[in-house]
Amino acid sequence: MRIITISREFGSGGREVGKRLADALGFAYYDREIVTSIAKKCDLDEGYVENVLRKGLTINVPVTFGHSFYFYSDPTSENELKVLNTQQQIIKELAQRGDCVMVGRSSSIILEKYDPLRLFVYADMDWKVKRCRERAPEDEHLNDRELEKKIRQIDAGRAQHQKLLTDRKWGDREGYDLCINTSGLEIKKIIPGLKELALCWFGQKEGK
Amino acid sequence: MRIITISREFGSGGREVGKRLADALGFAYYDREIVTSIAKKCDLDEGYVENVLRKGLTINVPVTFGHSFYFYSDPTSENELKVLNTQQQIIKELAQRGDCVMVGRSSSIILEKYDPLRLFVYADMDWKVKRCRERAPEDEHLNDRELEKKIRQIDAGRAQHQKLLTDRKWGDREGYDLCINTSGLEIKKIIPGLKELALCWFGQKEGK
Repeated sequence: MRIITISREFGSGGREVGKRLADALGFAYYDREIVTSIAKKCDLDEGYVENVLRKGLTINVPVTFGHSFYFYSDPTSENELKVLNTQQQIIKELAQRGDCVMVGRSSSIILEKYDPLRLFVYADMDWKVKRCRERAPEDEHLNDRELEKKIRQIDAGRAQHQKLLTDRKWGDREGYDLCINTSGLEIKKIIPGLKELALCWFGQKEGK
Repeated sequence: MRIITISREFGSGGREVGKRLADALGFAYYDREIVTSIAKKCDLDEGYVENVLRKGLTINVPVTFGHSFYFYSDPTSENELKVLNTQQQIIKELAQRGDCVMVGRSSSIILEKYDPLRLFVYADMDWKVKRCRERAPEDEHLNDRELEKKIRQIDAGRAQHQKLLTDRKWGDREGYDLCINTSGLEIKKIIPGLKELALCWFGQKEGK
């Protein structure tokens, strides 16, 4: 089973890297599917699930995942915990189906024992702002500074979410096998190179 | 002109990545040559030059490179400054000769305006210790803790040296195009992938 996890700074094009790389390799690609499955399984709204996955717990509970009980019984936090536990379960289930690329949702941490190829995609702030602007919804009218703030906030949320699962800091290179800077790059043009590198990497690991 | 600069954590195999990648691409490879050239040009001992390049200035002088004069006239620091200035000159001269891979010596900073592909090679501490042990000189008898300390010290020196040239922190991903974790890898096996990715990257940049 060959699994590629993609963690990424908002606006760096990490999702595009993931989608194109999955296509090039013929791997399954999981992204929003994860949110949809969690929502269905927990009988919760997709928007709510997405929000929890983005921000983590809204309150500070003394909780460890995997323990058989926790002390907090506020209904809000119970739903949040349900989402986070289901997320782990679903990500593992998807991974077991076979070769895949999984974007975000702390999958590099959740799937650690499957020895995935862990990519981190990042870019200079200027480049991320430019990219976000090109892709902004029509009704979004943020200036550069506001856009930059939004980018930092979303990334801070991702870091926060990862903190629930591990001591390893989101974005620290030690937690990834390959970090790629997309500043100035047209992503589809680097896919053949990334594909080749991924195949070398898996070939190596399988050889052991 | 296609230039690849390799910055690396001590013990991560960055030099091997550089050498093999240069061979695979048919690029020139510069590493010790830089030290030798500086020593020759400055009429100084190679060991001394290497030490300066590793540690940077031993004293704190209010100096900026590229300025036409500085205030300090202690002979030690004058030699050190000579080495550092010559380093920049030689690295630029070598780069102008054509396609090359350049290892260390803050070349990613010095050659910034040539738009090099900037690699950073790193690995988990356990892996670096293992690698260092396998390659240690016969008369070196360090235990794991001592070896770890040595690794950290050498990297701290590299960070210190880079500080003389730029505000950009050594090892921060923003200063590199690609960061690769060599933990558990047999380096020669990932070279075809890295080569392909480098070619994609240069092809892209040239297309602009």
